[in-house]
Amino acid sequence: METDQHKISRTIEQLSTYESFKFACHQNHDEQPMPSIEVLEKIVSLNRSILFPGYFGPSIKNAKTIRSHIACAVEQLNVLLTDQILAGLLFNRNEDDEEGRKNLFDKAQSLAAEYISRLPKIREQLLTDVDSTFNGDPAATSHSEIIFCYPAIRAVTNYRIAHELLLLGVPFIPRIITEMAHSETGIDIHPGAKIGNYFTIDHGTGVVIGATAVIGNNVRLYQGVTLGAKSFPLDEDGNPIKGIPRHPIIEDNVIIYSNATILGRITIGEGAVIGGNIWVTEDVAKGARIVQKK
Amino acid sequence: METDQHKISRTIEQLSTYESFKFACHQNHDEQPMPSIEVLEKIVSLNRSILFPGYFGPSIKNAKTIRSHIACAVEQLNVLLTDQILAGLLFNRNEDDEEGRKNLFDKAQSLAAEYISRLPKIREQLLTDVDSTFNGDPAATSHSEIIFCYPAIRAVTNYRIAHELLLLGVPFIPRIITEMAHSETGIDIHPGAKIGNYFTIDHGTGVVIGATAVIGNNVRLYQGVTLGAKSFPLDEDGNPIKGIPRHPIIEDNVIIYSNATILGRITIGEGAVIGGNIWVTEDVAKGARIVQKK
Amino acid sequence: METDQHKISRTIEQLSTYESFKFACHQNHDEQPMPSIEVLEKIVSLNRSILFPGYFGPSIKNAKTIRSHIACAVEQLNVLLTDQILAGLLFNRNEDDEEGRKNLFDKAQSLAAEYISRLPKIREQLLTDVDSTFNGDPAATSHSEIIFCYPAIRAVTNYRIAHELLLLGVPFIPRIITEMAHSETGIDIHPGAKIGNYFTIDHGTGVVIGATAVIGNNVRLYQGVTLGAKSFPLDEDGNPIKGIPRHPIIEDNVIIYSNATILGRITIGEGAVIGGNIWVTEDVAKGARIVQKK
Amino acid sequence: METDQHKISRTIEQLSTYESFKFACHQNHDEQPMPSIEVLEKIVSLNRSILFPGYFGPSIKNAKTIRSHIACAVEQLNVLLTDQILAGLLFNRNEDDEEGRKNLFDKAQSLAAEYISRLPKIREQLLTDVDSTFNGDPAATSHSEIIFCYPAIRAVTNYRIAHELLLLGVPFIPRIITEMAHSETGIDIHPGAKIGNYFTIDHGTGVVIGATAVIGNNVRLYQGVTLGAKSFPLDEDGNPIKGIPRHPIIEDNVIIYSNATILGRITIGEGAVIGGNIWVTEDVAKGARIVQKK
Amino acid sequence: METDQHKISRTIEQLSTYESFKFACHQNHDEQPMPSIEVLEKIVSLNRSILFPGYFGPSIKNAKTIRSHIACAVEQLNVLLTDQILAGLLFNRNEDDEEGRKNLFDKAQSLAAEYISRLPKIREQLLTDVDSTFNGDPAATSHSEIIFCYPAIRAVTNYRIAHELLLLGVPFIPRIITEMAHSETGIDIHPGAKIGNYFTIDHGTGVVIGATAVIGNNVRLYQGVTLGAKSFPLDEDGNPIKGIPRHPIIEDNVIIYSNATILGRITIGEGAVIGGNIWVTEDVAKGARIVQKK
Amino acid sequence: METDQHKISRTIEQLSTYESFKFACHQNHDEQPMPSIEVLEKIVSLNRSILFPGYFGPSIKNAKTIRSHIACAVEQLNVLLTDQILAGLLFNRNEDDEEGRKNLFDKAQSLAAEYISRLPKIREQLLTDVDSTFNGDPAATSHSEIIFCYPAIRAVTNYRIAHELLLLGVPFIPRIITEMAHSETGIDIHPGAKIGNYFTIDHGTGVVIGATAVIGNNVRLYQGVTLGAKSFPLDEDGNPIKGIPRHPIIEDNVIIYSNATILGRITIGEGAVIGGNIWVTEDVAKGARIVQKK
Repeated sequence: METDQHKISRTIEQLSTYESFKFACHQNHDEQPMPSIEVLEKIVSLNRSILFPGYFGPSIKNAKTIRSHIACAVEQLNVLLTDQILAGLLFNRNEDDEEGRKNLFDKAQSLAAEYISRLPKIREQLLTDVDSTFNGDPAATSHSEIIFCYPAIRAVTNYRIAHELLLLGVPFIPRIITEMAHSETGIDIHPGAKIGNYFTIDHGTGVVIGATAVIGNNVRLYQGVTLGAKSFPLDEDGNPIKGIPRHPIIEDNVIIYSNATILGRITIGEGAVIGGNIWVTEDVAKGARIVQKK
Repeated sequence: METDQHKISRTIEQLSTYESFKFACHQNHDEQPMPSIEVLEKIVSLNRSILFPGYFGPSIKNAKTIRSHIACAVEQLNVLLTDQILAGLLFNRNEDDEEGRKNLFDKAQSLAAEYISRLPKIREQLLTDVDSTFNGDPAATSHSEIIFCYPAIRAVTNYRIAHELLLLGVPFIPRIITEMAHSETGIDIHPGAKIGNYFTIDHGTGVVIGATAVIGNNVRLYQGVTLGAKSFPLDEDGNPIKGIPRHPIIEDNVIIYSNATILGRITIGEGAVIGGNIWVTEDVAKGARIVQKK
Repeated sequence: METDQHKISRTIEQLSTYESFKFACHQNHDEQPMPSIEVLEKIVSLNRSILFPGYFGPSIKNAKTIRSHIACAVEQLNVLLTDQILAGLLFNRNEDDEEGRKNLFDKAQSLAAEYISRLPKIREQLLTDVDSTFNGDPAATSHSEIIFCYPAIRAVTNYRIAHELLLLGVPFIPRIITEMAHSETGIDIHPGAKIGNYFTIDHGTGVVIGATAVIGNNVRLYQGVTLGAKSFPLDEDGNPIKGIPRHPIIEDNVIIYSNATILGRITIGEGAVIGGNIWVTEDVAKGARIVQKK
Repeated sequence: METDQHKISRTIEQLSTYESFKFACHQNHDEQPMPSIEVLEKIVSLNRSILFPGYFGPSIKNAKTIRSHIACAVEQLNVLLTDQILAGLLFNRNEDDEEGRKNLFDKAQSLAAEYISRLPKIREQLLTDVDSTFNGDPAATSHSEIIFCYPAIRAVTNYRIAHELLLLGVPFIPRIITEMAHSETGIDIHPGAKIGNYFTIDHGTGVVIGATAVIGNNVRLYQGVTLGAKSFPLDEDGNPIKGIPRHPIIEDNVIIYSNATILGRITIGEGAVIGGNIWVTEDVAKGARIVQKK
Repeated sequence: METDQHKISRTIEQLSTYESFKFACHQNHDEQPMPSIEVLEKIVSLNRSILFPGYFGPSIKNAKTIRSHIACAVEQLNVLLTDQILAGLLFNRNEDDEEGRKNLFDKAQSLAAEYISRLPKIREQLLTDVDSTFNGDPAATSHSEIIFCYPAIRAVTNYRIAHELLLLGVPFIPRIITEMAHSETGIDIHPGAKIGNYFTIDHGTGVVIGATAVIGNNVRLYQGVTLGAKSFPLDEDGNPIKGIPRHPIIEDNVIIYSNATILGRITIGEGAVIGGNIWVTEDVAKGARIVQKK
Repeated sequence: METDQHKISRTIEQLSTYESFKFACHQNHDEQPMPSIEVLEKIVSLNRSILFPGYFGPSIKNAKTIRSHIACAVEQLNVLLTDQILAGLLFNRNEDDEEGRKNLFDKAQSLAAEYISRLPKIREQLLTDVDSTFNGDPAATSHSEIIFCYPAIRAVTNYRIAHELLLLGVPFIPRIITEMAHSETGIDIHPGAKIGNYFTIDHGTGVVIGATAVIGNNVRLYQGVTLGAKSFPLDEDGNPIKGIPRHPIIEDNVIIYSNATILGRITIGEGAVIGGNIWVTEDVAKGARIVQKK
């Protein structure tokens, strides 16, 4: 009978054959390690301490220390983000690609700087989200509580960061950032989605917002709402065609209650209210109010 | 063209203007830092090691060591909790408030002691929850497995801790504690809810229990169940009126299946069974059995 | 009036009485500590770095270093897993059990070796899951992105590890491993479920797959889908009878949309498509297509 | 030629033969792990925070919090120290020893309690050491600076802890505790030495105080001073006879300057001053003043 | 007989009496915690990464990234150092002191900025030290090895940092910083000493340089060398008078071999060579060469 | 007057000029980071757990687990050591060097394997050192205590590891490894020294053994002993000539007491005894006994 030790040795050899690992293994080109989850978490923390100083990161003792804190955090962010953007660019690169690593480093540096220049706008947007959350939740005791405790603000922060990076053409990293929030909050927003101001998600667990969804201003979603794709055209090889708009358009001032599933490139008209637990695959008129059949 | 370095410096200045940060920044009064997520996690761990010694915290070698372990954990809890309650009281304080910091420290000390005195009752309640979970789950192999592995027990533990703190008038901290469990388990129980004994949540992801919900004894909820608010009255300024009962009352021995949404101050009568995926906005009679329309 | 200090001392005594802790405390037999969540997380990480080298764990510089990495990781896994399997065996052991600790250690060693020998098969299965996920998701940009970022792959990896351990008769540990993934991803797959190849879960938050569920090849589930039990027979003492098949059978090529609830030992026939938000408690024919009633 | 991989495999086998590891390996009896350096460091930290509250360990906000802090730290110390004393007792135990593990656990518990009861005396002694250090060092700006910064106070604290444990008959642990201080400060005091009050070491690197040294009150040593053994009688087998007094007796009020070496069971009489860099192997009279020959 | 538990409770009370803790406890004024060893270690690390970028701290990929790294590290240093300087100022403050906390915070900010402005000079000085070390050590293979590995460079770096802080009037912190190096290297340089450029310490364990020592340029010390005080005048109360010059003056180009002890306010003339293991308490002429008597 | 903020900005620019950083900065060739202190500490820990299993690293439950532990530790060591040897080779490399990075990686792999093959011999040597330490120290209670607690064994272990790496031609890494022990123990042994079996260092703080020292079998050194260089010839440019033998030869069975300084390429003859605190720069005859002049 095979001994334990032999069984282990045999398995090591099996797992080390090219046949076994060829599709399962990532070899790094150019000595660049994979994007690092740990560093990306640090990056998100830095963003949060820049966007909401004093709530996250070091205590803010007085207005004079804010600038010093922000300068420090932005410089750190610049260094770490450049490195991770580079990791993303290299990860994505076709091996035959002629673009040299040196160029990619320069590109990463300028993408990081451009991202940073968008932080003031991101802060503004998030403050509108905090506002609408406060106005819509009788259980909220203060804006502070929302900024510090509410998982939806955490998820939307990650989304707004990731969305800007995706607009700049950074590969791979945006998705990792929204998946971090997905894991922490159960809210899954694809970085490609377009979302207006004054956006509220209440409770949030189970919310899914697809890559081509478009959401107007002052929209409120409850837990378990899906804005998904119904079906998608295949190309000649039977593979799904990438990039086709396939998720809903949600116009301004819409409310969608818990566990509603909205599928396909349909439009939910301005001010509509969608009741919970329903399955919607066709357009809904402005101001309409639809609920589950009894 | 603007250099990267200049772009970064300019952004630092922008983010440091009063206009930009005024609603986004928390300055600490009285040198007291924000409540600390990290310390609150330690506090929850200490509670768990006191409530279920040997399952959490250090190994328990024999009955004699239990007392020593509990004494140690309670004293640690006292120190850390006093500090976090103080942070919560200060965080919440109106700056014009006359109540001095010294008084708040004394208040924090006595709130911590009072909380600690309620731990035996919390342990009793949780043991009823373990019991009902075991009796209702054919997959459970032992009480031990439930205490150690089941996410719902973790979520309900955090809720029962947070609920006592909220009853004592501790601001801010209770919500953070239930949000921790929300993040880990996908179960979102507001600390204000009232929940009886022998309470079971199965699987649990997506469960939402609102701030004014009232739940009797021996109630069982499945994953994705919402006990939410339907709509809420606004005050003269158009803000939601806080504190009005707006979530359901669930009487004893009710079972609610997965993804059901129960909204508004309605009553689900004793022994009723609510099928999954339905949207309920009106009272349900005792013993009734309702399911989704086909 | 009772002082704070006295209140605390009194509570320590109360919590330390046998009456209070007898059902709440775990005393370790044989000096063996409880299974360790921390070590089990390390074990899962090692598995992931063995199954997908270079994506997880250390960078892989060239094909020659793969073997060295795998040898090291497998040896570490062997040591840690043996210890945790032993902890699981002892945890589960009846105190009157005659089987000596020494025998259990030998048993743990051989179970760990046997588990390791199944890793090549687990890798193969997971690669089929990656494949079907890529083919079904227009938002996926590469196989790499799926392996590295997709929560469903993480959850299914934990499930496939846990399922093999459960087949080997390891108690307690498999459930902990699937609960880890549940916490991170909101996907709750019981280790006892049987799942074929080319299995896809999209988004995934709120998915529940029960202990006796059987899933064929090429099945796709969306977020919030429950494969649960409807009711279960009680034994003479009123306790649920353990081990009876009570969850659905899902045949090959089935798609189930978000938030659908499938309950009981029913069969969803080959190629069926189940729309979202519906409650299904009866068999569905091959190729059928059912949606929520409007 | 032998491949790298083969070389490694061959070496693993070589290192795993009984012949190779028999004198190099420690197998634990009774499942008890070795004493843990990490836990012993925690134990020393707890001692320091009990002896000098507010300097080490948590901040002390007011006199009322001191008691709570001390209660917590003492209870923690009790648990950890009991465990390490047990590890020491088992480590030392002859395998044929009849004394059961159960008895040793009880013994460890009572040794830990007895040690704790000596903490007030240790605090008193250390305060005399702080006092004499302040009085003898023109560079010291406050007692606080000495308690918080001076390496000699750290080394003497560890010694006074270790000495009490050694007097109680705890094996192995005392030496580890003094070696920790040796590593941090370069001051090597054997726990067996007897040292009076008002003891000062200045700078301290290189100081060695042997196991049977006896030091009176108000003695001051500078860096590099050795109180060592000159030679020692061998037993019939040529092994050094253990336990014979072989280190110097230093009477009250003696000062010994840097790098002096005092060897053998000689006496340095009261009030003597020994100049630096000399080698002393004979008694020195009271009040004498000896320096290196020029 | 007293039980263990009672013994412990009694000791807690004893240690908590005012009589016992009054000289042993530090209560923090103004809520400011003690200076933090952990933060000061971070501060020293930041200094080292600014002074020797690429050797310490993050990798430097090209010249363009140096500026970004330095900006980030300096801003972090500014924040942390301000806080620790404030802790030092408050720690030292007489309780009756009128100077308000607010003023001290402003003072701490400006001291930190002033310290930072001296970093270029510190870097220059340290490079001279590296140079002379390389020229004097046949075992050194490169300047890089000296910067990265040599303990004396680490100790002199801490000294040069601490000395500038002491010149700026920062209390308490400088001594902690030199004691950190003392612990790591066995080299004890008081921050008050004045030391010229091109300073070399070889091996270094046991070196002591007192608070009022003055060292010229191009001086070389070997391990175990003491530049100490012989005796010091007492004031009327019998306390040592602080601040009087009491340590040696070492002129340019002097070499002092291992374990030599130089005591008192004497002068070792330019170019003198002092042999090892000798005790010197009188002036040594320029160019003299003295060795131990045989 | 210059503001603090301006002062800081100006300093950042100053520190970032090429003139300022050119000799102070390390830019990494080939993307290879510097050798990592943290990883080298892990490497030393692995060595210790391989050489003395059960004393360091995981507990060893029975003889069967030793092999498994050793296999795991050796494989981990192989991976980490290969990487650090590569870092050393690249660090040292002349930039014009033609030898490609690929070749260096192969070289690093084979050096790591060769090093590993010498571990059995290192274990044997260290066991002789443990033996002679036990025989010479009346305070030692067991071989176990020496292996686990004695700083000299730690320092000699690091030396024996580093010496083998240096013999294999690995640059840079050996010195870092001996400096780690220097920092922990105050014992500074250059990896180039040659040291026989049955080597003892007692207490050890301040011991220095130079790069070209040669030490026979059964030699015993006490704390503060220097085996150093007296002077060294310069080359035409005034730089010290590297590699010339300049440290003492210590023959078999020599004892050297504390703080003795032995300088230059002299020979201390077999069986000689050198008293403490003396300065020796000439040969000492076999069997001689020399002490400090009185």
